This record gives sequence, structure tokens and C-alpha cells, in this order.
Amino acid sequence: MDFIKLISAPSPARIVLTVIDGLGGLPNPETGKTELETANTPNLDKLTADGICGLIDPISPGITPGSGPGHLALFGYNPVRFNIGRGVLEALGIDFDLQSGDIAARGNFCTVDKAGLITDRRAGRISNEECTKLCQLLDGLVIDKVKVLARQVREHRFIVVFRGEGLNPAVSESDPQQTGATPKLITALAPEASSMADIANRFLTQAGIILAEHHPANMLLLRGFSQRPQLPTMNEIYKLKPSVIASYPMYRGLAKLVGMEVLQTGTSIEDELATLKQNYNNYDFFFLHIKGTDSAGEDGDFDRKVKIIEQVDNALPGLTNLAPDVVVVTGDHSTPALLRGHSWHPVPILLHSKWCRPDKVREFSESACLSGGLGRFPATQIMSLAMANALKLNKFGA
Amino acid sequence: MDFIKLISAPSPARIVLTVIDGLGGLPNPETGKTELETANTPNLDKLTADGICGLIDPISPGITPGSGPGHLALFGYNPVRFNIGRGVLEALGIDFDLQSGDIAARGNFCTVDKAGLITDRRAGRISNEECTKLCQLLDGLVIDKVKVLARQVREHRFIVVFRGEGLNPAVSESDPQQTGATPKLITALAPEASSMADIANRFLTQAGIILAEHHPANMLLLRGFSQRPQLPTMNEIYKLKPSVIASYPMYRGLAKLVGMEVLQTGTSIEDELATLKQNYNNYDFFFLHIKGTDSAGEDGDFDRKVKIIEQVDNALPGLTNLAPDVVVVTGDHSTPALLRGHSWHPVPILLHSKWCRPDKVREFSESACLSGGLGRFPATQIMSLAMANALKLNKFGA
Repeated sequence: MDFIKLISAPSPARIVLTVIDGLGGLPNPETGKTELETANTPNLDKLTADGICGLIDPISPGITPGSGPGHLALFGYNPVRFNIGRGVLEALGIDFDLQSGDIAARGNFCTVDKAGLITDRRAGRISNEECTKLCQLLDGLVIDKVKVLARQVREHRFIVVFRGEGLNPAVSESDPQQTGATPKLITALAPEASSMADIANRFLTQAGIILAEHHPANMLLLRGFSQRPQLPTMNEIYKLKPSVIASYPMYRGLAKLVGMEVLQTGTSIEDELATLKQNYNNYDFFFLHIKGTDSAGEDGDFDRKVKIIEQVDNALPGLTNLAPDVVVVTGDHSTPALLRGHSWHPVPILLHSKWCRPDKVREFSESACLSGGLGRFPATQIMSLAMANALKLNKFGA
Repeated sequence: MDFIKLISAPSPARIVLTVIDGLGGLPNPETGKTELETANTPNLDKLTADGICGLIDPISPGITPGSGPGHLALFGYNPVRFNIGRGVLEALGIDFDLQSGDIAARGNFCTVDKAGLITDRRAGRISNEECTKLCQLLDGLVIDKVKVLARQVREHRFIVVFRGEGLNPAVSESDPQQTGATPKLITALAPEASSMADIANRFLTQAGIILAEHHPANMLLLRGFSQRPQLPTMNEIYKLKPSVIASYPMYRGLAKLVGMEVLQTGTSIEDELATLKQNYNNYDFFFLHIKGTDSAGEDGDFDRKVKIIEQVDNALPGLTNLAPDVVVVTGDHSTPALLRGHSWHPVPILLHSKWCRPDKVREFSESACLSGGLGRFPATQIMSLAMANALKLNKFGA
């Protein structure tokens, strides 16, 4: 990245990075075709025919990425070096405005018996309303000048943010990851984190008292203590003026971490493309995120994933009619409906530009992209390729 | 490279690395074929059919290399770690014999007005003769025991070499890269470069006085202060006795940096092949450089690039008749005529040897090499492959 920073140069050329979340799939045993291969996608196929394609490894072969690393890699950041903690990711997911120095942890309400042993790590999956109510009871506690903020996520899940001076996230988790055990004491994993551990333990004691009467949610577990990472911005690295169009908050949050400006948009693909059109003249980089494919994959709903891919294809002219200098279409990872979750399988990518040296591939699919001109490569190289195709990179060396 | 050094072993087997400069291209919009795909190349195709092929990335996907990094990568040197400065490269380009400790800078004669503001950064592109005359006026100045050497390159371009004790290249440039500004003062970018900065500024003051009457070339600008890099030689790494056959001085200079012996040759491809034949028994590695393709690409002359590739093909039996143990044909980067300059696109490579495990590719072209047995790989790995195919690398580990 230091290297790209040396040779990147601003220009009016526009790049649109379209991320169809969880795009890659696995073949349906009945048809032998993946979700993308099953979908009827004339517009994506046309773009593929005129462009160049390949397969990306979000992290490296065999590694299944979470949404954080998957997206950081797409933006050109080493996802292993710049790791985003669970607490921070949950906070981004609810649009919580994390401040520098804040320590975020992921919380689970749980059930303990009279001996203090955990009987249900998820407190019977209490309702969202109940979760909100309990968070209000915890929110605003002050322990040794450290303010504790609690916000509902979903069902038994919530976040706790510790805001104060000199806090350090290097502490252990309280969740023993099993029932029949007591919540674990939080310990400092580095000397400078001893006050964080102390405050977290005091918070847990106090919370235990407050929650005692709220069975089944009569205790809580904390994990993933983390701090907003300090990332160089995409403007610093690529000299871009970048923006994000995403209907889900977590992706807007991830994009904000690398300095993208958030464009207000609606919930449908059409809304997102309308937002792109409205803002097209104000930015030179757009990260356009489509969530539905990943959710369908996680639900194991092969047919719904196919349909959403077809919806994206149908809406695609709204993007291509703007004639961006560079269009990239890919995913942050695979989410095969058959696996009902993220997977390690490489993800199809297509790149379209005037200078892309088209290959012979005419169909956007896992099997066709295998013989694409981009070959198989790490997702962290997508940005240099996009920048090169936008003629935004100077020659290296004389 | 330390690794290769451990397992390389001398043998009489011969390797010919043929570099067709700027070989890779982009398709002509009318035909859909690149320069190499358009050219009629029966001999290269025959060698491809009997050999194995693939595509190389000189640096990494998306990065456009200059000639220096492009060639260092072909020779197996990490082109980012071993960066060659502009001044040194220009000096190599005119066959100037840089000595250890010399600091070379690239010079431009320029025009300044009475207020000292630059009105033309290229002094109206004065003639070669005028440039030579002005260099003679500057050549031989002595500042504080440091000798200044000035040599003409072309038109307004020349080199300045500072020769003396304790000089360090870590200084800023005097070229403000715009008109309407004064030349910038040269400053030390590291404490140990303060005497270099001081001498360079005193040289510029003195040069200003000497050039005052020589309008339009009444001042000069310096950039790219650099020192000949200390590279391990190819003999040290590969135990080879390497030589270079190149009609252009810069490539001979680059080859000398890694310890190749320069073979005198003429200006045509046929001259170069005659030189190869004459010296064939005296070396076990030949770097054969063909320049015309890159020049044609930079001129945007698609048809001339096609013709030069055909000339290379036509002359190829002069090489293959010698039956080298390993023949590699590739380029140091792409220079598509459509882009009129170097580009980031991967470069076709073919490797022919008795032990190469031939693939099914029968045509030497960008699109055919995509399905070659070598796949797509970094140019820095070519030398280990060539060495292996020459049976010059021992087994690693028991």
C-alpha cells in the first residue's frame, strides 16, 4: 500500500466497485449449476464478454472470511494485518458512532442458575423489545469515570462500549463458550490493559445485580473487546474521493473506516442505483453493496439467491448507462446456499474498462471465470488493477 | 535469491533469455487482435508448440514498470527492493562508466526569465549539438574537491555526475515540475546528505552564471540523484557466466549492474544473432535484447510493432539452430500501441527445453498463453524456472 501511494495520481476517471455479497456458490446437486450459473444474467454476461474476468481469493485458498476481512481485502487492505474486532464490527453494524479510544465488546444476555452456572448462553433468544429494555437499564453506568454505553443489536445480542481515558482492548473474554460453567473473570492480556479488565469486571458485577430479576436474561457475557482500527484512508492511498452506497449499516461502517463518504440510500437495488446516478458527478469511486445474495445463502435458500442475482442483473443498465471508466463486479466471499454460510471458495470477478485486454469468456460464472484473463489472484490486488485500468497509476521506476 | 544461491550449480548447459521489449499489447479495435496476435510468427509458434508457456507480471497486477524494474525482475531481482534511480538509469543509457560512490542526476536545460522564473522546462528542446556544447562548458568543474562531469543525452537532456568522497544521494530535486516558478533549492533528505546538497546548490549557482548568455538554455534543473546500486551478481546467485547482447546502451548498462559481460554487437536483430553465434561457446547465459517493439509501441505504431515481431520470428532459427538447452522468450512489460506507453498488462512468455513438460498451446499470443502450463506468475520466478530446465538447480532438502 505504501507502494501504491507513491504512484497513484488523481484524475476525473470513475471506478464503480459493485459487491454482490456472498456471490460465489456451490452447484445444486440436481443441476450441477451454482446460483450464479443458474441465474439468467444477460447484462452481466454482456459486461463479461466485453471485459476481463477471473477468480479472487479474499484472504488465501481455504480461508473463509468474515464480512470485515472480506471487504477490507476488496478495498486493498491486508485483512490479516488490519483486523477488525468483533465488538467494533457489531458497533458498525448498528451505525453506532464509535469514537477514538472507545472500547467496544459484543454482549450476549444469558441465563444463570442460583449457583451462577450458565444454563443458556442466549437467554432463550429474548425478543428485540426485551433486549432494548435491558440495554436501557445498563446504559449510562459510570465506573471510575468510564462511561458504559449499551445498545441493542438483535434478540439476545447487544454491544457494550466503554468510553474513558486510557482504556486498552487487550483483555480476555467472559464467555466460557459452554453451559454448566460460570462466566469467566476478565483478565488483562497486557499490562496496559489492567484498568480495562478491572472496569469490565466491575461492570459485570453491577450488571449481575441489575439483571437478577430479569430471568431468563439474568446475566450477560462479553467478548471481542476491540478498538476502532487506525486505517490509512483510501484518499491517502489512492488519491480517490470515495463513497459508499449500501443499505446495510455494517458495510457503511466498514467503508467509513477507510474514509469513504456515506451516501444516503434506500433498501432496494434500484434505490442504490438511483443514489449512484444522483451522486455520479461528485465522486470518482463508488462502493456499491448488495446484501440480499448473502442473506439468501445464509438461509440456505438457493432459489432466492438466484432471484436476487437476476434482480441485480436486471438493474445493471442503470450502472452501465453511466459509462464508468472502470466497472468491477465481484463478491466479498462465497456464501453457497448448500453450506448455509460464508465459505472459502474463490469468488468470480469481472472488470470492464477501455484498457482491460478482454478475454474470451462470455458468461459470468464460477466455471467460466476459471479461464478468464485475470486468472486467480488475491482480492487485495483488485484496487491496483482498477486503478491501472482507470489510468490512475504512474509508471514505477524509470 | 539467497535460497537459489544455496542450490544453484554450474554446468555447461546454456540458457538464452530473449527479451522482446514491450512485447505485450492490446487488441486493435478493428480486428480484436493484439500486435503479437496479428503478427505471422511460424517460428515462435513452433517453439511454443514444443515448449510451455504462460503470462508474467513484471511487478504485480496493475503495476506498470519502467525499463529498470522490468529487467531486474526478469533477472530474478526483486524490482521494488532494488530500485534504480533516474540519474543512474540515464547514465547507463549513454554507456557512462559510473564508478562506485558516483552520484548521478538527470539534467534538463531550461529557460528562465530575468526574474529567474522558469518559462520553458525544456529550453525549446535545443539540438543535440547545442546540448553537447553546453555540457562541455559545465564538464570538469570542481567544487570543494568534488569533480562534476556533464554528458549530453538528447536534446535538452543530459546527466551530471558528482565524483568525490562522502557523497550521498538522499537530496531533493531542483525541478519544480512547472513553469512560472524558480528552480528549487536542493535540500538534504538525510543528515549525511548535507554536503551533497551544498555542492549541488553551489554547482547550480555556478552553472547559472556560465549559462546566462546561452538563451534559451540559460539554466538547468536536476532530479533523480542516485548511486549505482550494489547488486549481487548473477554469477554469485546462479553460478552462471552471463553475457548481454543489446544494441541499446541502457540495457547493456542494466546487465552490467548484475555482472553480465557486454558483447559488442550491431544494431539489427540479425547482428545480435550473429553475435550470439560467435560467442556461443564462451558463456552459459545470454540475455538477448530487442528494442524495436517497445519503440514502435511508444510511438503508437501498431503496424510497425507487428512488423518487428515478424522480423524477430524470421531471425529466430539463427537462435534455435544453436539448440540452447533452455530458450525463454518474453518481454520486460507490455507496451500496447493503443496506450503509446508501458502498461501493466501481463506479458506472454514461452520456455523451451527438453524437460519443460509441454502444454497444449500452439500459438505464441496473449490469449493463447492464458491457458499455458506455466500459468500466470511473477517475472522474478523466470530465472529459477530457466535454471531448473537447464538442470542447474539441486534438490532442496533431503
